[in-house]
Amino acid sequence: MSEQRSTKKRIVSGMRPTGSLHLGNYEGALKNWVKLQDSGEYECYFFIADLHALTSDYADTSALKQNTIDMTADWLAAGLDPERSTIFIQSAVPQHSELHLILSAVTPLGWLERVPTYKEQRENITEKDIGNYAFLGYPVLQAADIIMYKGNYVPVGKDQAAHVELTREIARRFNNFFGDVFPEPQALHTEVLVLPGTDGRKMSKSYGNAIYLADAEDVIREKARMMITDRTRIKRTDPGHPENCDVCQMHRFFTSPETADSFDDDCRGARIGCVDRKRVLADAIIERYGAIASRSRELRSNPDQVVDVLLKGSNRARIEAEKTMAQVRKAIKIDWV
Amino acid sequence: MSEQRSTKKRIVSGMRPTGSLHLGNYEGALKNWVKLQDSGEYECYFFIADLHALTSDYADTSALKQNTIDMTADWLAAGLDPERSTIFIQSAVPQHSELHLILSAVTPLGWLERVPTYKEQRENITEKDIGNYAFLGYPVLQAADIIMYKGNYVPVGKDQAAHVELTREIARRFNNFFGDVFPEPQALHTEVLVLPGTDGRKMSKSYGNAIYLADAEDVIREKARMMITDRTRIKRTDPGHPENCDVCQMHRFFTSPETADSFDDDCRGARIGCVDRKRVLADAIIERYGAIASRSRELRSNPDQVVDVLLKGSNRARIEAEKTMAQVRKAIKIDWV
Repeated sequence: MSEQRSTKKRIVSGMRPTGSLHLGNYEGALKNWVKLQDSGEYECYFFIADLHALTSDYADTSALKQNTIDMTADWLAAGLDPERSTIFIQSAVPQHSELHLILSAVTPLGWLERVPTYKEQRENITEKDIGNYAFLGYPVLQAADIIMYKGNYVPVGKDQAAHVELTREIARRFNNFFGDVFPEPQALHTEVLVLPGTDGRKMSKSYGNAIYLADAEDVIREKARMMITDRTRIKRTDPGHPENCDVCQMHRFFTSPETADSFDDDCRGARIGCVDRKRVLADAIIERYGAIASRSRELRSNPDQVVDVLLKGSNRARIEAEKTMAQVRKAIKIDWV
Repeated sequence: MSEQRSTKKRIVSGMRPTGSLHLGNYEGALKNWVKLQDSGEYECYFFIADLHALTSDYADTSALKQNTIDMTADWLAAGLDPERSTIFIQSAVPQHSELHLILSAVTPLGWLERVPTYKEQRENITEKDIGNYAFLGYPVLQAADIIMYKGNYVPVGKDQAAHVELTREIARRFNNFFGDVFPEPQALHTEVLVLPGTDGRKMSKSYGNAIYLADAEDVIREKARMMITDRTRIKRTDPGHPENCDVCQMHRFFTSPETADSFDDDCRGARIGCVDRKRVLADAIIERYGAIASRSRELRSNPDQVVDVLLKGSNRARIEAEKTMAQVRKAIKIDWV
């Protein structure tokens, strides 16, 4: 990395360290990150949002480190490259906390109270206590994360567009008070694929219906084997109803429409059994993700190497963050050091 | 300072950088700080609370540096000794921001919304917009300031006891979640003297009735000369009513009760004029604060020296703060670095 900022636009994005990523996480976000990196058009900053995890999961942080290592292994296995992207841990760059406090000063409470997802989550999440101060302020921390690196684009699903808009408003308000320090980032909308899980619902860790990127072949085969198929098809000779079958629906996701149609026909005609299609589903998943899975498992067996990537990336991020903070402190007139 | 923490109890306190301190600030707080330091019983941490200033005065920070230098000059002139006390700038110890964010995670919103001074200030302060996120959270920042140094005592007026109580609760909640890292600080109540200003009301910068610690002798004489006395005493030969006279009331504060009584008698008997008593008042103020005033003015004429004191103190504070943060990060399990 040269001293001069390159003319490339910057992308900043993070994920909470939830541990192993499932195929839905990969298809919905990570794959896109890799694509953006590989395009060569952007300078990319990808971070483990452990401080965000703390804002809602402060009651138990025991898995934070292992989750961070597992998730990073998936990132690297999927193709994020520490030579081309800055991959770091949010908490290892304390400047994020510093900018968060400063942005807290310029952010009206009402902006935060009106964030649609805030109200929604306060009403719907009951398994943990999110009536804490930091949870209200997490869009402020998000804003700090992004503008710290003067990010130009933030890849988000459409449901998160409001957050990027809030980041823009916070950046603008800072600039109004203290001078033009931050560009206003833009949302880079990505098509969000909703991947079905092993129970036909959206794949989600909390539903317990996920297949993980790092799952071994036998685990994938076992998960496929346990899936429920068309409940009306009792015997192998009964005609199937693929539209009511989780296995058929999931298989469709991992193969071409033509292949899926052909299998659906054979199912309706009772020419193949459920066990056959489960095997084909497992094969398709293994074929598509097997290389990533084995790389991720290899990385996990060498966690020091994964941590080393994160620490080197964090050092690089700190240098960039400190450049921004020097400008921020000067703008606010607290540039003593 | 040795590597081992001394067995002395720690005191932590800060002031917003409002600039020159007036006599009321000195009598109400600073004098007590000097006394606590001079007792030799405590390890003292005194800081310029510039991040707190930012939480409510973010709209204009142009005077922040000069105010910091002026206030620090007053501190040093009044007897705070950088060899014995750690005197530092809050924003120059970024660990405060880091701990603030972590404590934000464990602080329920309701605790903050119920702070009596919060409601009161939201209702009464109209000249600036304090409906911002950080203003709601300033007790969290206060808690971070205090427990960062594992403070045992916080010198406060009785009106601030609720803040120290909140700090205790936040420390307790952190300890409950993450293990026993922080002692719970106690309020060290100091008798708050209400010093009258030049208009008879409580001396206050915002009332424009203040005499400043660093005021030159001629400024003090001029302020005394401009004061309003008993409005019913038109001529020198009219009998005065010292109970209705700001000069007489203020003089009483700066002299012995006997001397004040004797001057009151002479006033009632028209044996002295208002101009005479104004002169005596100015003399009394100059006698009491003159040495501090000249030291403060000398320090102000050498601002680099004042800044140097602050930077050295901030370095010392950072080392202590980093020790605490290493424990905090380990307790939360984000001790990567």
